[in-house]
Amino acid sequence: MGCLDSMRECCDRPKNTNIRISFPAVCFVWQTAMIILFGVFIRYDEESDTHWVEYKKEKNITSDAENDFYFRYPSFQDVHVMIFVGFGFLMTFLQRYSFSGVGFNFLIAAFGIQWALLMQGWFHSLDYTDGKIKIGVESLINADFCVAGCLIAYGAILGKVSPVQLMVLTLFGVTLFAIEEYIILNIIHAKDAGGSMVIHTFGGYYGLSISWVLYRPNLEQSKRLHGSVYHSDVFAMIGTLFLWMFWPSFNSAITDHGDGQHRAAINTYLSLASTVLTTFAISSLFQKTGKVDMVHIQNSTLAGGVAVGTAAEFMLMPYGSLIVGFCCGIISTLGYIFLTPFMERKLKIQDTCGIHNLHAMPGVIGGIVGAITAAAASKEVYGTEGLINTFDFEGHFERSPTVQGGYQAAGLCVAIVFAIGGGIFVGCILKLPIWGDVADEHCFDDEFYWEVPEEEESLHPVLEYNNHMMINKRTDMVESNFSEPQT
Amino acid sequence: MGCLDSMRECCDRPKNTNIRISFPAVCFVWQTAMIILFGVFIRYDEESDTHWVEYKKEKNITSDAENDFYFRYPSFQDVHVMIFVGFGFLMTFLQRYSFSGVGFNFLIAAFGIQWALLMQGWFHSLDYTDGKIKIGVESLINADFCVAGCLIAYGAILGKVSPVQLMVLTLFGVTLFAIEEYIILNIIHAKDAGGSMVIHTFGGYYGLSISWVLYRPNLEQSKRLHGSVYHSDVFAMIGTLFLWMFWPSFNSAITDHGDGQHRAAINTYLSLASTVLTTFAISSLFQKTGKVDMVHIQNSTLAGGVAVGTAAEFMLMPYGSLIVGFCCGIISTLGYIFLTPFMERKLKIQDTCGIHNLHAMPGVIGGIVGAITAAAASKEVYGTEGLINTFDFEGHFERSPTVQGGYQAAGLCVAIVFAIGGGIFVGCILKLPIWGDVADEHCFDDEFYWEVPEEEESLHPVLEYNNHMMINKRTDMVESNFSEPQT
Amino acid sequence: MGCLDSMRECCDRPKNTNIRISFPAVCFVWQTAMIILFGVFIRYDEESDTHWVEYKKEKNITSDAENDFYFRYPSFQDVHVMIFVGFGFLMTFLQRYSFSGVGFNFLIAAFGIQWALLMQGWFHSLDYTDGKIKIGVESLINADFCVAGCLIAYGAILGKVSPVQLMVLTLFGVTLFAIEEYIILNIIHAKDAGGSMVIHTFGGYYGLSISWVLYRPNLEQSKRLHGSVYHSDVFAMIGTLFLWMFWPSFNSAITDHGDGQHRAAINTYLSLASTVLTTFAISSLFQKTGKVDMVHIQNSTLAGGVAVGTAAEFMLMPYGSLIVGFCCGIISTLGYIFLTPFMERKLKIQDTCGIHNLHAMPGVIGGIVGAITAAAASKEVYGTEGLINTFDFEGHFERSPTVQGGYQAAGLCVAIVFAIGGGIFVGCILKLPIWGDVADEHCFDDEFYWEVPEEEESLHPVLEYNNHMMINKRTDMVESNFSEPQT
Repeated sequence: MGCLDSMRECCDRPKNTNIRISFPAVCFVWQTAMIILFGVFIRYDEESDTHWVEYKKEKNITSDAENDFYFRYPSFQDVHVMIFVGFGFLMTFLQRYSFSGVGFNFLIAAFGIQWALLMQGWFHSLDYTDGKIKIGVESLINADFCVAGCLIAYGAILGKVSPVQLMVLTLFGVTLFAIEEYIILNIIHAKDAGGSMVIHTFGGYYGLSISWVLYRPNLEQSKRLHGSVYHSDVFAMIGTLFLWMFWPSFNSAITDHGDGQHRAAINTYLSLASTVLTTFAISSLFQKTGKVDMVHIQNSTLAGGVAVGTAAEFMLMPYGSLIVGFCCGIISTLGYIFLTPFMERKLKIQDTCGIHNLHAMPGVIGGIVGAITAAAASKEVYGTEGLINTFDFEGHFERSPTVQGGYQAAGLCVAIVFAIGGGIFVGCILKLPIWGDVADEHCFDDEFYWEVPEEEESLHPVLEYNNHMMINKRTDMVESNFSEPQT
Repeated sequence: MGCLDSMRECCDRPKNTNIRISFPAVCFVWQTAMIILFGVFIRYDEESDTHWVEYKKEKNITSDAENDFYFRYPSFQDVHVMIFVGFGFLMTFLQRYSFSGVGFNFLIAAFGIQWALLMQGWFHSLDYTDGKIKIGVESLINADFCVAGCLIAYGAILGKVSPVQLMVLTLFGVTLFAIEEYIILNIIHAKDAGGSMVIHTFGGYYGLSISWVLYRPNLEQSKRLHGSVYHSDVFAMIGTLFLWMFWPSFNSAITDHGDGQHRAAINTYLSLASTVLTTFAISSLFQKTGKVDMVHIQNSTLAGGVAVGTAAEFMLMPYGSLIVGFCCGIISTLGYIFLTPFMERKLKIQDTCGIHNLHAMPGVIGGIVGAITAAAASKEVYGTEGLINTFDFEGHFERSPTVQGGYQAAGLCVAIVFAIGGGIFVGCILKLPIWGDVADEHCFDDEFYWEVPEEEESLHPVLEYNNHMMINKRTDMVESNFSEPQT
Repeated sequence: MGCLDSMRECCDRPKNTNIRISFPAVCFVWQTAMIILFGVFIRYDEESDTHWVEYKKEKNITSDAENDFYFRYPSFQDVHVMIFVGFGFLMTFLQRYSFSGVGFNFLIAAFGIQWALLMQGWFHSLDYTDGKIKIGVESLINADFCVAGCLIAYGAILGKVSPVQLMVLTLFGVTLFAIEEYIILNIIHAKDAGGSMVIHTFGGYYGLSISWVLYRPNLEQSKRLHGSVYHSDVFAMIGTLFLWMFWPSFNSAITDHGDGQHRAAINTYLSLASTVLTTFAISSLFQKTGKVDMVHIQNSTLAGGVAVGTAAEFMLMPYGSLIVGFCCGIISTLGYIFLTPFMERKLKIQDTCGIHNLHAMPGVIGGIVGAITAAAASKEVYGTEGLINTFDFEGHFERSPTVQGGYQAAGLCVAIVFAIGGGIFVGCILKLPIWGDVADEHCFDDEFYWEVPEEEESLHPVLEYNNHMMINKRTDMVESNFSEPQT
């Protein structure tokens, strides 16, 4: 009891945002740890090693075009753009938090991908003959995917945490992700090409749980900065569009060569197109005089990509993709209008970017769509070989599609459990008063972690001129006020 | 006569920009129609279907690398970026119309690609055995191309129409495009890899005709917003550069595998480089003290990509590409300086983005260059097989290059006729007073269709502080004025 | 002596920034020269020529996928984005020099790639049978690389030169680059996949030498514009991120097909990730209360990509890449904090963008890392064939790895010598008073070379309103002042 009291007391101390020791220390220690662990564990795989020349002869591979690099590298680069420019710029929408939005996104993604290569490597690509993890282009994509989960979580707590907290969030987030992913993909053997469950459901609820633990009762004191300005909204559109455009690459990046990648790209392209229209429609319908809200356009237009993630490689059919997008545009936009305020007021969950509407809900929908599509698969539609090929019904995973549907649903549950459990655990750690986060009245302000350029006066010569004249004038007036008595 | 009067009267009613019913209605109805039509007509082609495994065996294809996806997907993603970020951000240059520029571009492109898949599918890839349209990555590229025509047209009327009008413009635009394309490419059998004729000439004159019908006599009342600010010009450069950089992908995206794609990319790269220099030169030459104008750099530097579109896959030769770019930089920039003001004053064509200089004129030049290059083709330069391969002189299209040159010219005429005819027709529809467009004095203002963040005060702490002080001061002064009589 | 005096006198005349004749003249003359030289010298290579169909049969190539276009085009487009958007937007960080940053970058890159195709063609790909240069996609990448050297140099003198001077800098820069590259890669036979030596070391010291010659003693008179504003820093992050994300493509673009490209991409990815963490750490450590500085994040995070350039295709090992990135993040950030001010004060080198910290130093480190890694290569690690394949130890270049290490170091020296010698020479030419550069008090201002939109008032309705009221008020007050005597 005394312990709990002292803990509470400790948490109630005035906030100190000086992270001059803790932040560099965390960066240096963790990066050094990465170097050591990489030295011990990580090597090139046979396609990126100089032994490729000999490997080719051995395996009778006639062309370098068969190197996985050429099948996946263009998609990898698109995914990379989504992670750094897409997520980064999407979070620049706040008027005075653009530096942190894009900058800390950069930081934690760069850290996360290294840790992810290790964690995912241990689970997925450990070579038991020599105890090394062998990496290639697919590992890089998977690392980017893994980090996406943490970046999604960042969206919920944007503006309310310190960079040190974000590093901690990422360390645990990547760890949890790798375990959860291993259970869902390898043990349960669910399919999840675009990560509706593994990435978006997990990342969404992970972030929301953390935000719930870190609830800030007096956040309205920062209200003045909790909005956008004209140009910050345009910056955010850069993020939106790069996410939107490259989502077909995201969902197809690690699917099977050939028809798998091809089909996943088409399905995602269609689902996203459909989402745009229903997002505009709902946004206009619920605003006075039919005006559209930028927040919805920046976020809800992407929900279709999330929701089609699991089923993108299945025979969802073009119209099926359109239907998924159609529904998600509606649900996600309604979420922004009704659910986010409700969650803040009633559930004490403050969700800065509305990740519940963009990632969590559409992710769950995606998991369900995936389960249904899998359960409905048949040899008539897929072809005998196609069915085996698409679902990897081989070895001790020889299942009927119906059973696979059940396992898909199980996978979704695992993602949610890991996300909420992990989020609450990590949230409690982040609540410790040692991480240098800001007080409630200083949220959404770059000022505390960045050297911010002080003035923009020179941009407004006319205004500046007026102001200078007025200041002079004022001084004159003050003087004249003083001298007035004499007259 | 009475009918005409009542029509005119109807058009003269005060403008109502409330689109709360019409806009969502159009979005929902059309998206639902898309779902139904996709359900009836659209299926995966053999390269994106799960039957690919069996298809490969049947056709003796040894590697997944032969799937068209790997030949075209990187180019597709580049084209996708051009459509959404390129066109979108190019239209953010107006000081208070950036939301609409990038946002409505997003909306109509997302709608247009769906309708284009259907329209182009019916004309180009209907499988008569089962009455289905089979789509693959090339269909996605073609849909993006098709939508480009409508986005070009949007440039002419930017700031002067409502989103509902844009949806109508796109519906008809895509329909006209698909028919015109079918006539030019399939019936006339003209070649047009980068769409100088099919996309740019058509899109340009389609938009200009609509703008002519929708002429706004009192547009100068919106003059105050009809210009850029410093940062909106920088945003527009994002659009310009992504268009410029990825244009080689645009012109090579659907050309023949191998040398066709390779050559088209090289020609476009060179033409664009050349255009940049002459654009800077002319812009500087016609301004006081040699200053360069951002409008020219944002637009005219792209004219070389348009003009090399048709001939990009031919043996235009590297120096030929440079010459095309050289001329187009000059012509396009002179167009901005002399032609656009002339067209507005004398021809009553208000062209917000100057699409006549960027798309229409260079498109026509591109068509002519294509016709000449085709007519000049010879077996010496192309090789016997190369000539057949490049121009598809097979079956009942066995022609001499000279004849092909004639057909190329005919294709250009078809594009112009469809554009102007279609544009006038659609313009008349858009003139109906039911679409919620703004009054002349409210053009170029996001305020009417978007929730716009109200103030940027917090961005200018110094200014704000001064202003607050001054406001207080003023209040004081007002009070002191009142009290003055007493002194 | 008299000659020198008159020269000095000539240089001391008041600056005239009118470039209305000189600038267009240079553009037109040089572009015309390009067309003539391309006409005489440049043709398509066998993979982009229509004879490819026949060539395939001759060489028994079974698939179009073997065309080099499909191995390199995605990387080419990434490099292209780095050159135009990456470098361009990185230079938009100054508050009133964004137009010139992105605009002149565009201009000189577009000119440079043409001249580079010729210069590099003469040295590397001249076909002696017909005296023609044969170009393909690899030539385009190399041209982009070549231009990168000049763009790096632009960074040092950003804000202090006229566009005419930049054109001259580029003409000579490309020429020097092509010679230096020929010596390093072909004569010395050093390997330099990502151009640590050839591009970054050369470009860095070339720019710094020019800046030294063009030293402006009164530059502090422009201090008011020599900084960023909030949104210009966000624009610069666009450049940073696109450079960072696509650097793996930069370093792997022209390496060997297969494992070479694959490994180079992985090494660069890892090195860059590591750099980000140490950059944030050092930036925070040396600022009051641990705040991070945007300048460091924009620039130093990229140093790891530069430093891994030479060794990227070697068996540097994943942990080796991390170590390189680790060190470079530290060194580069410390460079910004201590070295740049020191160089300006003591060495009279004004380095606007800090290219010494971002390119020159990391480039030298990269050269050294390359030499060490090459010298340490062994058949155990590389495999017999792999060793020959990676270092091209064939023909009269059959060397031991140790010897190769020595040659690598020699290559680095050649790059530095060419850069400094060439830079001083070109600097002297640029010092002539005929190029239209600005006076010291007018540096970092777009006003002199661009038509700049005049006001942003409409963006600030509230402020504007206040100001208007105040101006009115002031007028009233002035009037009342006049009338005061009467009271």
